[in-house]
Amino acid sequence: MRVAVLGTGTVGQTLADALVGLGHDVVLGSRTSDNHAATSWAQRHPGRASHGTFADAVRDAELVVNATAGTASLSVLESVGADVLGDRVVLDVANPLDFSQGFPPRLSVCNDDSLAEQLQRAFPRARVVKSLNTVTASVMVDPRALPAPTDMFVAGEDADAKAVVTDLLVSLGWQRDHVRDLGDLTAARGLEMYLPLWLRLLGATGSADFNVAVVPAPPPEGAAGG
Amino acid sequence: MRVAVLGTGTVGQTLADALVGLGHDVVLGSRTSDNHAATSWAQRHPGRASHGTFADAVRDAELVVNATAGTASLSVLESVGADVLGDRVVLDVANPLDFSQGFPPRLSVCNDDSLAEQLQRAFPRARVVKSLNTVTASVMVDPRALPAPTDMFVAGEDADAKAVVTDLLVSLGWQRDHVRDLGDLTAARGLEMYLPLWLRLLGATGSADFNVAVVPAPPPEGAAGG
Repeated sequence: MRVAVLGTGTVGQTLADALVGLGHDVVLGSRTSDNHAATSWAQRHPGRASHGTFADAVRDAELVVNATAGTASLSVLESVGADVLGDRVVLDVANPLDFSQGFPPRLSVCNDDSLAEQLQRAFPRARVVKSLNTVTASVMVDPRALPAPTDMFVAGEDADAKAVVTDLLVSLGWQRDHVRDLGDLTAARGLEMYLPLWLRLLGATGSADFNVAVVPAPPPEGAAGG
Repeated sequence: MRVAVLGTGTVGQTLADALVGLGHDVVLGSRTSDNHAATSWAQRHPGRASHGTFADAVRDAELVVNATAGTASLSVLESVGADVLGDRVVLDVANPLDFSQGFPPRLSVCNDDSLAEQLQRAFPRARVVKSLNTVTASVMVDPRALPAPTDMFVAGEDADAKAVVTDLLVSLGWQRDHVRDLGDLTAARGLEMYLPLWLRLLGATGSADFNVAVVPAPPPEGAAGG
């Protein structure tokens, strides 16, 4: 699959590395066509990797990964434009973290809206799927490095788009029965509002390399008395 | 220990039941001294249970549990008053969920503030500890009903108060090494902002009887290559 990864930070490069490793053709997109990080990255992966502007990256892509800073994501997609973005699947892994007032960051949007919904409203034809924003980059691409299966979430309006993303997650090592479809894109509010807790867990565990596993009660018929 | 449980809803009654079961003397507090739910509850637990107004309940308590609706909690504690509340430990299990615009609820406070911080600011001498708000009532009091250990969080300004709450959690069945101290009371923002995700997980799993387990990566020295 031809994938546009938008954003040259740790998340973008880590995802781009992993996608190349899985045999995908990846274009790493950035604001300018001569972005140093993107150029260096493409040189490290001859054959399957290239780089360009955000619009260049999206133009021939089947899947678009938004790995830009959440506070910049809308302007990045605006630089691509609705005509180029079309009805592509947009895997939105970004978090709307605003560090302008220091640490901990606040969310630039939350409660009755989310970044993912903002992107979807701005580009109604695009098929936005929120996922992967609840873990650090290394866990996104190697969930099996954790000592037990943990959970990943998908949310979006388009079932086919969620299926594309789910297959991608499984190819990265996520267990299919631990990929939980949380419904429509309003679920992105909860996924993004989890970040303040995630940041505190980072502080408490001392490492970003963690995730949560959802532990449901056994079904009533199998429940032990107590 | 003499415990005031404020709030006669499912959470309040479930916690009050469990605390009586652990041998504590519990006063279930409500707005009026003749509240039917509180009267009935006390009658079901002769000996260790009584009921009264919020202020009555707090007056002789060593620990105060705020199990009122989050949107009412501040006015409830105001009805108790700073003089009666004093420097008591206040275990705040409430969530500031505003259902006035339907389901899913929005949070009435979030992002740069939290209900727990509002309570703490209003009653500076009280020692507010946020905990238990991330699970449904039945899990609060019986975490061992879940098929694997899951995590509970505490946040607050006062280390002694967090120790009192942690001991109480352990007595309810929470494993001490799964009770995570997330630091000062600003961590309550993340704990309360987790609720929108919790509500989506409720929808996806079909039951409120679940919790999350934090799965950290193994320490580097023990990490497998790969």
